[in-house]
Amino acid sequence: MSASRKIAFVGLGIMGKPMAVNLVKAGHHVTGFDLSQASIDTVVAAGGHGAASIADAVKDAEVVITMVPADPHVEAVILGEGGVLENVGAGTLVIDMSSITPQTSIKVGKAAREKGVRTLDAPVSGGEAGAIEAVLSIMVGGEAADFAEAKPLFDALGTTVVHVGPDGAGQTVKAANQLIVAVNIQVLAEAVVFLENAGVDLAAALDVLGGGLAGSTVLNRKKANMLNREFAPGFRIDLHHKDMGIVTDAARAVGAALPVGAVVAQLVASARANGDGPLDHSALLRGVERLSGREVK
Amino acid sequence: MSASRKIAFVGLGIMGKPMAVNLVKAGHHVTGFDLSQASIDTVVAAGGHGAASIADAVKDAEVVITMVPADPHVEAVILGEGGVLENVGAGTLVIDMSSITPQTSIKVGKAAREKGVRTLDAPVSGGEAGAIEAVLSIMVGGEAADFAEAKPLFDALGTTVVHVGPDGAGQTVKAANQLIVAVNIQVLAEAVVFLENAGVDLAAALDVLGGGLAGSTVLNRKKANMLNREFAPGFRIDLHHKDMGIVTDAARAVGAALPVGAVVAQLVASARANGDGPLDHSALLRGVERLSGREVK
Amino acid sequence: MSASRKIAFVGLGIMGKPMAVNLVKAGHHVTGFDLSQASIDTVVAAGGHGAASIADAVKDAEVVITMVPADPHVEAVILGEGGVLENVGAGTLVIDMSSITPQTSIKVGKAAREKGVRTLDAPVSGGEAGAIEAVLSIMVGGEAADFAEAKPLFDALGTTVVHVGPDGAGQTVKAANQLIVAVNIQVLAEAVVFLENAGVDLAAALDVLGGGLAGSTVLNRKKANMLNREFAPGFRIDLHHKDMGIVTDAARAVGAALPVGAVVAQLVASARANGDGPLDHSALLRGVERLSGREVK
Amino acid sequence: MSASRKIAFVGLGIMGKPMAVNLVKAGHHVTGFDLSQASIDTVVAAGGHGAASIADAVKDAEVVITMVPADPHVEAVILGEGGVLENVGAGTLVIDMSSITPQTSIKVGKAAREKGVRTLDAPVSGGEAGAIEAVLSIMVGGEAADFAEAKPLFDALGTTVVHVGPDGAGQTVKAANQLIVAVNIQVLAEAVVFLENAGVDLAAALDVLGGGLAGSTVLNRKKANMLNREFAPGFRIDLHHKDMGIVTDAARAVGAALPVGAVVAQLVASARANGDGPLDHSALLRGVERLSGREVK
Repeated sequence: MSASRKIAFVGLGIMGKPMAVNLVKAGHHVTGFDLSQASIDTVVAAGGHGAASIADAVKDAEVVITMVPADPHVEAVILGEGGVLENVGAGTLVIDMSSITPQTSIKVGKAAREKGVRTLDAPVSGGEAGAIEAVLSIMVGGEAADFAEAKPLFDALGTTVVHVGPDGAGQTVKAANQLIVAVNIQVLAEAVVFLENAGVDLAAALDVLGGGLAGSTVLNRKKANMLNREFAPGFRIDLHHKDMGIVTDAARAVGAALPVGAVVAQLVASARANGDGPLDHSALLRGVERLSGREVK
Repeated sequence: MSASRKIAFVGLGIMGKPMAVNLVKAGHHVTGFDLSQASIDTVVAAGGHGAASIADAVKDAEVVITMVPADPHVEAVILGEGGVLENVGAGTLVIDMSSITPQTSIKVGKAAREKGVRTLDAPVSGGEAGAIEAVLSIMVGGEAADFAEAKPLFDALGTTVVHVGPDGAGQTVKAANQLIVAVNIQVLAEAVVFLENAGVDLAAALDVLGGGLAGSTVLNRKKANMLNREFAPGFRIDLHHKDMGIVTDAARAVGAALPVGAVVAQLVASARANGDGPLDHSALLRGVERLSGREVK
Repeated sequence: MSASRKIAFVGLGIMGKPMAVNLVKAGHHVTGFDLSQASIDTVVAAGGHGAASIADAVKDAEVVITMVPADPHVEAVILGEGGVLENVGAGTLVIDMSSITPQTSIKVGKAAREKGVRTLDAPVSGGEAGAIEAVLSIMVGGEAADFAEAKPLFDALGTTVVHVGPDGAGQTVKAANQLIVAVNIQVLAEAVVFLENAGVDLAAALDVLGGGLAGSTVLNRKKANMLNREFAPGFRIDLHHKDMGIVTDAARAVGAALPVGAVVAQLVASARANGDGPLDHSALLRGVERLSGREVK
Repeated sequence: MSASRKIAFVGLGIMGKPMAVNLVKAGHHVTGFDLSQASIDTVVAAGGHGAASIADAVKDAEVVITMVPADPHVEAVILGEGGVLENVGAGTLVIDMSSITPQTSIKVGKAAREKGVRTLDAPVSGGEAGAIEAVLSIMVGGEAADFAEAKPLFDALGTTVVHVGPDGAGQTVKAANQLIVAVNIQVLAEAVVFLENAGVDLAAALDVLGGGLAGSTVLNRKKANMLNREFAPGFRIDLHHKDMGIVTDAARAVGAALPVGAVVAQLVASARANGDGPLDHSALLRGVERLSGREVK
C-alpha cells in the first residue's frame, strides 16, 4: 500500500465522485470540491473532506486532480481566476483526468510549468461502471517522474495505467481510442444491414465473424445491442460526438489524415441530429438503416 | 469418425490442395483435378486419386467441391461447357468453397436446382496456414439438410463451421468479414499516424488501446506489422482489393449503404495503384502515411 | 447538307425514337427496329422504314446505330445470336450510342474488328428534350476516320460533337460527366442544408454563390428545384444510380481513385433505397436533409 | 455618388490595403491602421490618413472596417484590450470583412450590441485582383438597416453585394462558397485522373464536359491549371485549408451533415501535409494523382 497523500479533487460528477471515493478508500486524505453540495457530501460521508471553493480545496494539497466535462471547464478551473494555478504552491502535482483536446493539455502544462507546478494529463476510459469498480484504463501524458509519483493513485482508480508520452499524450491516446471505437461500431453497423438485407441469419453470422480476423471488443460487447435493437447507454452518442470533435481537431493540429475518421464524425453528428444523442453509440446502426431506406424502430 | 464419401475436388491451388489432402487424411475417397499436374500428383501422393478432366473427376462422385479464384472461374467450372453440371447426376451435392459474389452463388444454385443437383456456397477464411492446419472458418449458405450432410466434410477442413442462411449467404458473410477487416485495419492505420505525429509512445499506446473497447483481433495480429513497418503477407492487398469489389457490388445488389466501406474500397484500390498490392493488408498504413505527407519506407 | 446514308437504327425508346426521326428529317434513309411496334410506326410515319428483326434492319445498312438501356442489351443486340455482327458485312460502321461501361465498348470494338466491322461508341447527354430538339452533346470514342465519316449524322442529332479518343473513350467521358454532375449536386445540397440551418436567406445566398467561383450549370439549373423542393424529373436518380455504377467500375478498371465519387455513389444509392429513385437527381437534397435530422417534405 | 463618410480601416494586408485605397478613391475620409507602417503609408499616399493605434484610428469614425486574417485576430482587434469596442461610441457601425467562423461573428455582434454598437459581417470573395479592381463579391450578415447604410461603401469595393441574413450569415455564405469550390475542384481532379488513365484526349473531354450539366466556373477557370500542371496561385491551398476548418466547424455548430465536405476537408489537409500548401487549390489534382499511384510532377 502506498503512502497516504493529501489530494484535492475538483469535479465530482458521474465519474469524479466514485473516483474520489476510491481514493478515500485507498487511504488518502481527499478534499473534494464541486458546485453540487450533494456530491461533496457523498465524499465526506465516505470519509473524505469538503471544501467551499477551489482555493479552499487545494490550499494544502500535494496533488490536485481535476475531472470536468470539456476544454472550457479545464481552462476555467485550472487557468482561470480563482482557479488551481492561482492557489497552489510550486511543486504541486496537478493531474487533469478530463477528456479534452491535447492542445489544451499542452497549454495547461506550459502555463503550470511557468509557475513551477507539475502536470499530468490522464484521461480515462471504462465509463461510470469502471469508475465505481476502480477498473478504469488510464492513459497518461507528462514527465516520467511525475507519472511514477502518481502511479499509486492511478492504481487506486484503474487496472490499466500506462505512461504514453509527454504533455497531451494521454489525451491523444484517448482520442485515438474514441476514433477506433466509433469506426469499428460504424463498420459493424454497415455489415449488419448488409447481412440482414441479404437474408442472412445475423446471429449465426456474427458468431462466425467474431471468431476470425473481424473479431473485436466492439463486436463482442455491442452485438446484443444490434441484434435486439436495444440501445440503452452505455456510452452516449452525444459524448462520442464531442469526442469526434476532439479527434478531428487534434489530428488536424498534427497533420494526420483521417479519411475514414472524418466520414464517421459526420455520421455520429448525423445520429445526434436525428435525435439519437441519448442512445448508446451502437445506435450508429440506426443511421445505416436510415441510409438504406429501412424502417428504424 | 464420419463415413467415407466419394469426393471430387476441382481446383488444387494454394488453398485447394491442402484442403483436398485433409479430406484424404480424414478417410475420404478424393479425386482431384487441376490444370497443374503437379498439384494432382500431390493429392495422389497423399493417398488420393487424379483425374484428367472435370468430367473424369466428377463422374462417380457423391460430393463435388470446387475451389477456384473468382466468379468467372466458378461460372466456367460449374456452369460451363464440359463443367460440373453437365457431368453429374441428379442428387449430387456440389459445394463451392471459392470466394465470389453472392449473386453468382445464387445463380449457380438456381441452375443446379433445375437439374436436380444440390449446392452449398461455403467460402472460408483463415488463409493458407488455416487450410494446411485444418482450422479454417467456413461460412455456409444453402439448405439446412445439405449443410447437415456436408458438416463432417467441413469438420475435416476447419474448426468454425456455421450455416448462415440460404444460397449465397456464405458468400455474404465472407464479404462482410472482409469489409470489417479492411475498415478495422484502415482506422488502426489512421490512429497509428495520428499517434506518431503527436509524439506518443506508439507501442505503449497500442497496448492500452488493445485492452479496452478499441481492442480487436486486427489490432492484436497486425500491431507488430505496423510498429515494425514489416508487411510480408499475410493476406495480400491485391486479394483484399478483389474482395472489396465483391463487397461493394453485393451491398449495391441488396440496397445496403456502405459509406465507410466505399471509402475504404477506394483506399485499398489506392494502395494497389501505389504498388502495395503484394504486401499484407496491414500496409494500408502506407496509404495513410502518404496522405499525411510522411516518408513511406 | 451531307449525302444521304442508309442507316439502321436499333432501339427506339425515349431517346432513340426522336433521334431516328431527326435522322429521317436530315434526309437519311432510316430503317428502325424495336420490340415495340408502336415505336417503329412512329419512325415510319416520319418518313422512315420499319423492320421485323435486327437482321432485317441491318441487311443493307451502311451505318448501324444502337441505342439501348445497358451493357447486357448492347451485348445481346450487337454480339448476341441474331445480332448486328452476325448480319452486317465487312466495312459497316456500327455506332453504339447507349450509355454503358467503357469496358463493354472496348469489347464490342474488338469483336467487331475481328469481322472487319468498324465501331464508334457515342453516348449522349442532354436528355429527352435534347434528343427531340437535336441539341445533344455527343462524346465519341473510336478511330478518327470513322468519326469523320459519322460526323454529319451526329450533327443531325446534337450541337456539341467531340471525338475524345479510342474505343470506349466516349463512354469514359460520359461517365466522367455523370461523376461531376452527381458530386456538384451533392455539394450544393450540403451547402443548402448548411445555409438553411444557419438561418441564411437561401435565395439571396444562391444568387451570390452563383456569381462567383462556386457557380456552375448545376447551380443554375437545379437551384429552383432545391429552393422549391420540387423534384419532378429531369434526370432520374434511378438512372444516375446506374451511371454511378458505371463510373466506379470504370475507374476501378483503370486504377483511378475516386474518394469523393465513391461516397457520392453511396449517397445516390441511399436516395434510391429511400424511394427517391423516380425523382430528379437534385433530390439528393432530401438525403442531406435526412442525414441532418430534418423533416423531408 | 454617396455622401463622404469618416471611416477607420483596421488591417491593411493584401486585401485590406487596396480596399482602403478604393474607399479613398470613392471620396471617403479613410484613416488606416496596421502593424506595418509601410501599409499605412500607402493609404496616406493615396489620399487617406494614418493612425498610431486602433484607438487613434477609430476615435472619430462613423464606420469602422476590420480586415484581418482569422478568428483570434478579430477577437483581439474588436473585443480585446485597446480594441475597437473599447474606443468607439454608441451608434458606430463596425463592419468586419475578415473571413472567420459565423460563431465568432455572432459573438462579436452580441458584444457590440451590449454597448450600443452596430455590426455587420461582410466577408468577400474574389481575391487580391478582385480587391484591387473593386469587383469583389460581398456577402453581408446583420440588420437590414445597417446593410442599407453600408451599401454605398460596399459598392466602392465590389460588384456583387448581397444581404443574406442576420449576424454571421455573411460568414456562413462565404463558408458555403469555399465548400462548393473545394468539392467542385476535387471532383474535377478525380475526373481528370480517370480520363487520363483511360487514355482519353483530356482537352477535348474538358471542352465537351464544360458545355453540359458538368460545366462550372471552376472547370472554366481551373482547366488550364490542370491541363498544364501549372499551379501558381491563385488561391492557396493553405488558405483553403483554413476555410475548410471554418466550414466543418460551422456546419457542426448548426447540425448540418457534410459527408462529402468532410472528406474533401481531409484531402485539402492532405495536400497541405504533402507540401502543396503554397500552390493554387487546383493542385488538389496532385492528391488524386498520389492516390492513384501516378508520378506527381
